[in-house]
Amino acid sequence: MASFRCLTFLTDYGLEDGFVAACHGVAARIAPEVRVIDITHLVPPGDVRRGAAVLAQAVPYLPPGVHVAVVDPGVGTARRGVAVEAGESVFVGPDNGLLSWAVTALGGPSRAIHLTNSELWLDPVAPTFHGRDIFMPVAARLAAGSDFTSAGTRIETTELVTLPFPASRVHDSEAEGEVMTVDRFGNVQLSITASDAGLIGAHYGKVLVVSSGRRQLTVPYRETFAAVAPGELVAYADGAGLVSLAVNSGDAAQRLGLPPGAHIRLTVAP
Amino acid sequence: MASFRCLTFLTDYGLEDGFVAACHGVAARIAPEVRVIDITHLVPPGDVRRGAAVLAQAVPYLPPGVHVAVVDPGVGTARRGVAVEAGESVFVGPDNGLLSWAVTALGGPSRAIHLTNSELWLDPVAPTFHGRDIFMPVAARLAAGSDFTSAGTRIETTELVTLPFPASRVHDSEAEGEVMTVDRFGNVQLSITASDAGLIGAHYGKVLVVSSGRRQLTVPYRETFAAVAPGELVAYADGAGLVSLAVNSGDAAQRLGLPPGAHIRLTVAP
Amino acid sequence: MASFRCLTFLTDYGLEDGFVAACHGVAARIAPEVRVIDITHLVPPGDVRRGAAVLAQAVPYLPPGVHVAVVDPGVGTARRGVAVEAGESVFVGPDNGLLSWAVTALGGPSRAIHLTNSELWLDPVAPTFHGRDIFMPVAARLAAGSDFTSAGTRIETTELVTLPFPASRVHDSEAEGEVMTVDRFGNVQLSITASDAGLIGAHYGKVLVVSSGRRQLTVPYRETFAAVAPGELVAYADGAGLVSLAVNSGDAAQRLGLPPGAHIRLTVAP
Repeated sequence: MASFRCLTFLTDYGLEDGFVAACHGVAARIAPEVRVIDITHLVPPGDVRRGAAVLAQAVPYLPPGVHVAVVDPGVGTARRGVAVEAGESVFVGPDNGLLSWAVTALGGPSRAIHLTNSELWLDPVAPTFHGRDIFMPVAARLAAGSDFTSAGTRIETTELVTLPFPASRVHDSEAEGEVMTVDRFGNVQLSITASDAGLIGAHYGKVLVVSSGRRQLTVPYRETFAAVAPGELVAYADGAGLVSLAVNSGDAAQRLGLPPGAHIRLTVAP
Repeated sequence: MASFRCLTFLTDYGLEDGFVAACHGVAARIAPEVRVIDITHLVPPGDVRRGAAVLAQAVPYLPPGVHVAVVDPGVGTARRGVAVEAGESVFVGPDNGLLSWAVTALGGPSRAIHLTNSELWLDPVAPTFHGRDIFMPVAARLAAGSDFTSAGTRIETTELVTLPFPASRVHDSEAEGEVMTVDRFGNVQLSITASDAGLIGAHYGKVLVVSSGRRQLTVPYRETFAAVAPGELVAYADGAGLVSLAVNSGDAAQRLGLPPGAHIRLTVAP
Repeated sequence: MASFRCLTFLTDYGLEDGFVAACHGVAARIAPEVRVIDITHLVPPGDVRRGAAVLAQAVPYLPPGVHVAVVDPGVGTARRGVAVEAGESVFVGPDNGLLSWAVTALGGPSRAIHLTNSELWLDPVAPTFHGRDIFMPVAARLAAGSDFTSAGTRIETTELVTLPFPASRVHDSEAEGEVMTVDRFGNVQLSITASDAGLIGAHYGKVLVVSSGRRQLTVPYRETFAAVAPGELVAYADGAGLVSLAVNSGDAAQRLGLPPGAHIRLTVAP
């Protein structure tokens, strides 16, 4: 029995061309009753890691459904297209690691399919536009109630490409990690969870020592940016539960020059 | 009896992260039948005044419903979250003035609630993401038919924080005001209404003298930009009924260097 | 008998103001059951040619319905507003050529209307905001089932303004054309179709000689960008069936300095 599910959509297609709209159109033609929620289409071109981070942090708040994600610098090559079931959701996209953190966020993969059933695709398929011609038509059919297994050949979930999760560990009185993402506000999100920070004694009200390379910053750890004066640095646990650095009413990434991937060590000031 | 209403959404969250999508997801989980119309998410970070202007100018054209607006530099501090009823609509957001011009545009506040009913919120609440964890869940429930008063404690509408409306007055043959906003096209919108301009004799076909500080411009007042040659300055009454300055096929804000808040005086050339 | 149809929307209004939302609101008030798909609102201000290209390339993938497009530097002047029927779709917008390539893409115009029935418009009409006050209200009524002919006065389809299609021709062993558009990735789309390129012997695996003015490039013709090493130039047939130039994991437009309109000649290397 078919049941309509929500479809969500993340890409690096940008908003200035008609690429996203063509995909929306394909979905609306196949499954007019299915609602589409855009996650973002402004992932920097080809930045699989950034796409993976945004997807993983949004997906716990999205309705269970079919999540299409396309950041696909290898489009048209031997990399596979896959559908991956996790929890009550299905992820559809390239098998390049993009989906892996979100799949983990929903409890890990239960089943996986290599998208080989070309009867579900548009015809012809443009070798550079699998989002429109393969991923979206497959996803729209799944959202409209087609069986997961109709999309292709079963593969082992252990065969799926996974992106290494940013390093993060706690030893003695130090938490170690890296810059995960920088958001629109210039807030610098670390791969260190608030609960890991708690293990080294970092609680609201304390002062943290943040080290990256030879630089060292002393930063108050507070519930929110506005707990410090405008222009001041602050550390806080962000909406994804990760320790982040902000400047109240300012741009911490710009101030600190800490790009995604930068290595970070945290201790609590005595 | 529950009746589903439209939900609209304005923030400074930007489009490159998953913040807006997380809020859409929260709404879709709580109230899947409710349609969401995005107003904009590109309010400059923390620019409450700009958010207030965009909201107030869009809302007369939106369906009555629940309007969520979040430009909230004080998130997580003592500033209140509120729901404000105006006309057939309800506004939900921080009590920092952001909602006030739109509330006025719909006839002023009839009832107001301090959002204290945490049973309607997500759990836990991130101190820096009330849009996702408080405002949107409350708004989605109201849009799905929950009673306005269920959201918290009644407060006097006179207690609501209001943003001072940009100065605008007419005396003798002069209209005085300030730059309200600058739009994508570089059109400079003044806080002077076309009907106030009419009081000093400004009608289409006349020439206006626009003064700001020691600068003075002589500008034809026409129905539309294309009434002057490409590259020429023109004054016109814009889609919000406010006198605006444009360059036909150009960018007036860039040409004139008039930022929001700049003081302006208008007279009609003899 | 009324039947609800999809409404699509393309403008140069940008996303930072409330212009697009006001139009969505107008549509939702008139025809709450009608779904709206945004094509793009980031057409560069007044760039009718770019708007026409994006619309024409998206529309074959959109559901049949009412397509509203507004890139309208002549708004408020004598230029007409029109509704044009093509295939199962109706286009609504200014009669300045913006719609013409999309109309051609759907098989050419079958009927056309000059939008003269002001009873379908908002009242008053802002001379600079026909998108909100004329085009969208008319389109929403048509999408909700109003008869095409109710929108105004029949005109001959031959009277419609058309935009000259970018030059493209094949002679002997050379294909000639121009740069059609540049997309988010910096991919340079030519006005030369893959099938025209085939006529001069350009097939995947061959090497193309691309000339523009006195510059000449030797570029492999492959199915996809990732068929060459990162940083390498490649020619391919894009999702619209047009020969395009890309840099794998790079920006070809920036590298080559080829703007829309640049004249291009293609031959196959011996």
